[in-house]
Amino acid sequence: MNMRIVSTVDEIRNARLILDGTVGFVPTMGFLHAGHLALIRRARDECRHVIVSIFVNPTQFNPNEDLAKYPRDLKRDFRLIEPFTDLVWTPTPEIMYPQGYQTWVEVETLTSPLEGAARAGHFRGVTTVVAKLFNIIQPTKAYFGQKDAQQAAVVRRMVRDLNFPIDIVVCPIVREADGLALSSRNVYLNAEQRKAATVLFRSLSAAKELYEAGERDAEKLRAKMKTVLASEPLAKSQYVSCADYDTLDELTAIKGKALLSMAVVIGETRLIDNFVLAG
Amino acid sequence: MNMRIVSTVDEIRNARLILDGTVGFVPTMGFLHAGHLALIRRARDECRHVIVSIFVNPTQFNPNEDLAKYPRDLKRDFRLIEPFTDLVWTPTPEIMYPQGYQTWVEVETLTSPLEGAARAGHFRGVTTVVAKLFNIIQPTKAYFGQKDAQQAAVVRRMVRDLNFPIDIVVCPIVREADGLALSSRNVYLNAEQRKAATVLFRSLSAAKELYEAGERDAEKLRAKMKTVLASEPLAKSQYVSCADYDTLDELTAIKGKALLSMAVVIGETRLIDNFVLAG
Repeated sequence: MNMRIVSTVDEIRNARLILDGTVGFVPTMGFLHAGHLALIRRARDECRHVIVSIFVNPTQFNPNEDLAKYPRDLKRDFRLIEPFTDLVWTPTPEIMYPQGYQTWVEVETLTSPLEGAARAGHFRGVTTVVAKLFNIIQPTKAYFGQKDAQQAAVVRRMVRDLNFPIDIVVCPIVREADGLALSSRNVYLNAEQRKAATVLFRSLSAAKELYEAGERDAEKLRAKMKTVLASEPLAKSQYVSCADYDTLDELTAIKGKALLSMAVVIGETRLIDNFVLAG
Repeated sequence: MNMRIVSTVDEIRNARLILDGTVGFVPTMGFLHAGHLALIRRARDECRHVIVSIFVNPTQFNPNEDLAKYPRDLKRDFRLIEPFTDLVWTPTPEIMYPQGYQTWVEVETLTSPLEGAARAGHFRGVTTVVAKLFNIIQPTKAYFGQKDAQQAAVVRRMVRDLNFPIDIVVCPIVREADGLALSSRNVYLNAEQRKAATVLFRSLSAAKELYEAGERDAEKLRAKMKTVLASEPLAKSQYVSCADYDTLDELTAIKGKALLSMAVVIGETRLIDNFVLAG
């Protein structure tokens, strides 16, 4: 396969126009890992053509966050995706947000809790850039990771509310052998922190064990996760949640499909992880 | 021609899918007049297929406004557009904004002055419904009237910012013989008010005359418009503007393309009108 790399809007539009049949699209911020590759391989399996975008979107970082130091390695990214990808688009911030830019897409209720509460403006940046990418790429299907569970829910909601003619496919979390969810931010962890980082998986697993033993009191699952997190001195919990899978409302009693999720800071690095309880 | 009338999203999507070649789209709130017909005829001239939507969009009315009494006559509308239209879509509010709806498209700076200042939330409703209509109809070109000058500017900005692959065509205002701009709201005027309503055209014309005589002081044009409006006892001016055509910033000195615009209340009816000064 001959992967084509383009950067302007006109180039990607023209390259897209000559693709016939189904187009699978994987939006990324680069520094790709096996989690991204699972999305791209799934797109390859399901669609005639695969388009990947690599864009570290400034509008989804708030001023206190790690935009400038977000890890980047385009050459390595290209090498990794080349076997599976027809077309890769790497726009600049100036291409995506030119002088005078002033339009925003916002999902309301679903963006309030969890990541939305911890990261002001984050989801407005996500939904805006995804809407732009969808309008430019015009994919048949778009692929997102379950790792960013709330993002997947918010994008699904936006697509339904604004009637984008696109199927959203959410793919399972890819993990290291010891359970750590793959993330571009894992490179920030030193050896000691890396070891401590398994506490997210361990605490989710402990809560799931309770659930599988029959526990349906959401507060008991949250308490279990907190206890396990508290046992790791390097980990500072930001939130711990047991919520309805669709609305993300915190639950009292677990009845249907639910989401266990958490954000934990280790050193300077903020990690998130989640399990779905199938209901 | 055999015009097809559909109402659900699936129906319009399926009917759209079998149209090949260019599609011209005219979004309307119904109760159509010669201004709408000019848009539809222009679409007919320029595109292979023409789709019209008729939807009184509740989210662009604020609670103090005239949503409930907004005039409606679907049968008459169908008869008027039938010679020029392939497909007409008449969704309900429940189809456009189902239970749980929570996504909004917002253009920021351009929506602050003029109509945006007078009608809180109005443009958020407009851009949201237009984004939805665009995603469902997927037109080649979409047609808007210069009558709603700020709306046209806001939609152009949204299309550019969110990268909709759609050409926006803005068509001139259609007027009665005495200069009154056509509007669905003109039916609210009684005979005396109808006569008074020509004051908008008269005041715009007076300012334009000054401009054509060489006047470039924007404040002098605004003062002239206000003086003419004040001469009509039934008219209550809401705003009078001489602004940059693209940014809608109020001007001191007129240099390039400019927009003269105003909102005036006569009885219970709010009327708007504008002239473009070509620059």
